[in-house]
Amino acid sequence: MLCLLNHTRPEWVDIAAADINSLLIDHAHCEKKAATNALSMIKLYPQHENIVREMLTIMKEEWDHFEQVYSRILIQGAHLTKDRGNEYAKRLSDHIRKDEPQRMLDLLLVDALIEARSCERFSLLAACPSIPAELRSFYKELFASEASHYTTFTELARAHFPSDIVKHRLHELAKIEASIVDTLGNLPTMHG
Amino acid sequence: MLCLLNHTRPEWVDIAAADINSLLIDHAHCEKKAATNALSMIKLYPQHENIVREMLTIMKEEWDHFEQVYSRILIQGAHLTKDRGNEYAKRLSDHIRKDEPQRMLDLLLVDALIEARSCERFSLLAACPSIPAELRSFYKELFASEASHYTTFTELARAHFPSDIVKHRLHELAKIEASIVDTLGNLPTMHG
Repeated sequence: MLCLLNHTRPEWVDIAAADINSLLIDHAHCEKKAATNALSMIKLYPQHENIVREMLTIMKEEWDHFEQVYSRILIQGAHLTKDRGNEYAKRLSDHIRKDEPQRMLDLLLVDALIEARSCERFSLLAACPSIPAELRSFYKELFASEASHYTTFTELARAHFPSDIVKHRLHELAKIEASIVDTLGNLPTMHG
Repeated sequence: MLCLLNHTRPEWVDIAAADINSLLIDHAHCEKKAATNALSMIKLYPQHENIVREMLTIMKEEWDHFEQVYSRILIQGAHLTKDRGNEYAKRLSDHIRKDEPQRMLDLLLVDALIEARSCERFSLLAACPSIPAELRSFYKELFASEASHYTTFTELARAHFPSDIVKHRLHELAKIEASIVDTLGNLPTMHG
């Protein structure tokens, strides 16, 4: 799927479906962090109009998702709790190079990979028969939205860097991402 | 105005009006930081539904303002540049106490004060004859929006703390805020 080099371990979807409240709470934090990330890209690259404009749009969409997920948490009779962190995103972000312009390329491609993995996970949730139909429809909508964000991030990378460099680095980071995902798949969280 | 204990030095509005591009660029960063701040409040206090709900709304409004200010920067033929920081907000934030629950009270009241000061500055800009009428109308709209945010932050403080404690601490912080503002007023920035 998209640029991903492996599949999530099959047991993950059952672990997630068995604890929907924990999944929703972690998911809300993921949407919040995606919004924070869009703000951070504008802070880092204010001079690039294409980055600012795309982040403006992504920010609104992530925020709309946060609101929807938050409402579902309350409907479930649950409450938003403190963010326990995202080991997957943290480990992947450790591979972002420090110097520009490599940093910008890596930030865009790590964002693209996180969107791609979220897409794969949404598609697994959307197809899981033990999840209520209405919630499965919601995950299906999110799949489409996050797939579009994946495209946005890779297109921004190609707008700023030669396509062979983008392709090569995306493949390098995708290998790292796949190796991280191989060690996960046992928690009721979006990237656990 | 609102809880403020002094007025901005009268020369500020002329300094700001004489360099509208710098003012707009700094203003865009202020709106971005207000959005970041709303996200940060949700991160710190996810368990409080009234805080999450109000920050959801404030976030959308600040983001809409950012988009409007950003468009105006481009219409002016200018470009968004790196944020040079906000000495005013930084100095005021130094007075936020570290321990809870005092930290929550101070965060809400410092936010309220920043919104109040922004209101005062928008009202000065809206009344400045050397600023184009269309831009003055924009500042007038923002005045109303930020005044409503001031109310939201003080009401949240009163929802979580006894009103006499809120009143006392708001006055203490307003004195600090006024003393900071007395040293400013000479830069073409929103709080300069």
